[in-house]
Amino acid sequence: MDDRSKVLRFGGFRWDGVPVREYKTGDVPYRDVTRQTLLGEAAGEEPFSFVTRYFEIQPGGYSTLERHQHPHAVVVIRGRGRVMLGDRSYEIAPFDCVYVSPGVAHQFRATGDEPLGFLCTVDRVRDGPEVIP
Amino acid sequence: MDDRSKVLRFGGFRWDGVPVREYKTGDVPYRDVTRQTLLGEAAGEEPFSFVTRYFEIQPGGYSTLERHQHPHAVVVIRGRGRVMLGDRSYEIAPFDCVYVSPGVAHQFRATGDEPLGFLCTVDRVRDGPEVIP
Repeated sequence: MDDRSKVLRFGGFRWDGVPVREYKTGDVPYRDVTRQTLLGEAAGEEPFSFVTRYFEIQPGGYSTLERHQHPHAVVVIRGRGRVMLGDRSYEIAPFDCVYVSPGVAHQFRATGDEPLGFLCTVDRVRDGPEVIP
Repeated sequence: MDDRSKVLRFGGFRWDGVPVREYKTGDVPYRDVTRQTLLGEAAGEEPFSFVTRYFEIQPGGYSTLERHQHPHAVVVIRGRGRVMLGDRSYEIAPFDCVYVSPGVAHQFRATGDEPLGFLCTVDRVRDGPEVIP
């Protein structure tokens, strides 16, 4: 048996050995968002069917308004924000959960004085987003 | 398009509309553990490939010592504890992440004065656990 089990230590919304990346590459509209892939795609892990990422949006920042066929499972762990889901919108705070249904336009915004941070789990094999101008 | 998107409001480590269940049924060894299924299996959701559950272990309690072929992706969100991974063991605290590799015996214990709470995501279709006596 090949034991690749591990603990990723947390410190200040960073994790041991997990790089902080730009949210997206390319010319798409967003502001002040970073991405850290925590579990499911790291070197040495067996492939999961899913990937757990941590996104952080600085105060005043926002994610791309987009839609896709894969659903999102989100758990907020830091800060305050607002999520748009289709034509509805909701205030969110730690540890609210958000389910984004396939095909529904969605966008996250940080509305407080500290960053909005959330875990977002997705299927490992998934369609790409359609950006909504 | 059928928009089943939703926000599950958090309050006191309970979530709107999410029942608190016993951790396991049957005659298996564990103490003071509850389970709440947050995302991925609720009525009205499209099926994900994965399920996000929240487990809470009361002070002095522990989960079953077990192994299985599906991996675990764990993020601690409350309390202090210790996780056994094969023949290793680690202290864990919010927001440490734990990857449990396929086939590796594992057990969680709450070691502080408050409950140990963690998110645990698994493949929706998965093998059952082998309990280690």
